[in-house]
Amino acid sequence: MRMRNKPWVKGYLEEDHRYLIKNPEDYKGRWREYFNLKTINVEIGSGKGDFWLGMSDRNTDEAFIALEKEENCSAIALKKASELEMKNACWLIKDAIDMDLCFEKGEISNIYLNFSDPWPKNRNSKRRLTSDSFIDKYYDLLDDKGRIIFKTDNTRLFEYSLVTMNRKWLIEEVSLDYKSLEHNEPMTEYETRFVNEGVNIKRAVFIKR
Amino acid sequence: MRMRNKPWVKGYLEEDHRYLIKNPEDYKGRWREYFNLKTINVEIGSGKGDFWLGMSDRNTDEAFIALEKEENCSAIALKKASELEMKNACWLIKDAIDMDLCFEKGEISNIYLNFSDPWPKNRNSKRRLTSDSFIDKYYDLLDDKGRIIFKTDNTRLFEYSLVTMNRKWLIEEVSLDYKSLEHNEPMTEYETRFVNEGVNIKRAVFIKR
Repeated sequence: MRMRNKPWVKGYLEEDHRYLIKNPEDYKGRWREYFNLKTINVEIGSGKGDFWLGMSDRNTDEAFIALEKEENCSAIALKKASELEMKNACWLIKDAIDMDLCFEKGEISNIYLNFSDPWPKNRNSKRRLTSDSFIDKYYDLLDDKGRIIFKTDNTRLFEYSLVTMNRKWLIEEVSLDYKSLEHNEPMTEYETRFVNEGVNIKRAVFIKR
Repeated sequence: MRMRNKPWVKGYLEEDHRYLIKNPEDYKGRWREYFNLKTINVEIGSGKGDFWLGMSDRNTDEAFIALEKEENCSAIALKKASELEMKNACWLIKDAIDMDLCFEKGEISNIYLNFSDPWPKNRNSKRRLTSDSFIDKYYDLLDDKGRIIFKTDNTRLFEYSLVTMNRKWLIEEVSLDYKSLEHNEPMTEYETRFVNEGVNIKRAVFIKR
């Protein structure tokens, strides 16, 4: 998600915020303890936080950690969240490539990838969140029953991801026209727009072999 | 593919036809020798034979064996084929469930599944050509580099098949809007109709793990 720099963001993010954890490396291996919850969900690329907020609100017995490298989006999400009282959610401003600095092997229960950047050009394929280097990382960080839940509007990214993920993971579920609302899952701004335009949402769930 | 019984079919199929092999069990383990060709392709559920005819015609250095259990379709296909001179094609009136009677382990190079019956009701799922019992059979009969090339218009069958196939096979390619014409592949009557109706053709290629 690209966004113009907002002048208030830099100062805002220097302040303390209830959900923003500025030193996530210090919690590596201790997230269950921190939340006092067994299930640790991580959303990678949380954008403006709608999915993260919705899921945290609906599933108070599980923890939801948002990972977002983009500061403008993060600031908007944190503003929205600041009005809510959640004990099971936090926000990390981090690039997914560095997530092994913040999580111990086997520490994550589920990883959510929602409407990730498709990086359509071949020369950028390594940046896709379902390319091999990321896949290996997820494998290490997820526990043995861990799942990756992947949703996208982008047909080419979906095709690519089934093939790459499949090398290491088993496909547990596939839907080519997933209806988040029917599954009581929060819709992001993006998803709502795509659905209104008649674009089918593609979804797959991957488990360890 | 269901079809009304045609009165001429029974008598027609009792006659000899250039491409119809009535005793395929006798050729088990000898198909390469029979055709004097290395690559043995089998299409399961060949319907009226358009794909089989087109592929045989375009790839004369590979053998194409059609498997079709339905007699009316078979008779129509054989009639069409009777006007052509092909040395690399034959037709078997056989149920796929019995294909191990006609082929030796590792004898088949590629299996084509085109627009198979989706059997939409759960209680009929075992009849789908991508259900577990068929998948095991294909695994035995295909050689180590063997591929299954699967095309369908049916979204639910495609989703189902990715999950079932994936347990034993690796997904090599996926396309959610495959254009057969762009790949110089023959279109069946069915496929042409679906494409004209704007239905996307879904295709996957599976290889052994």
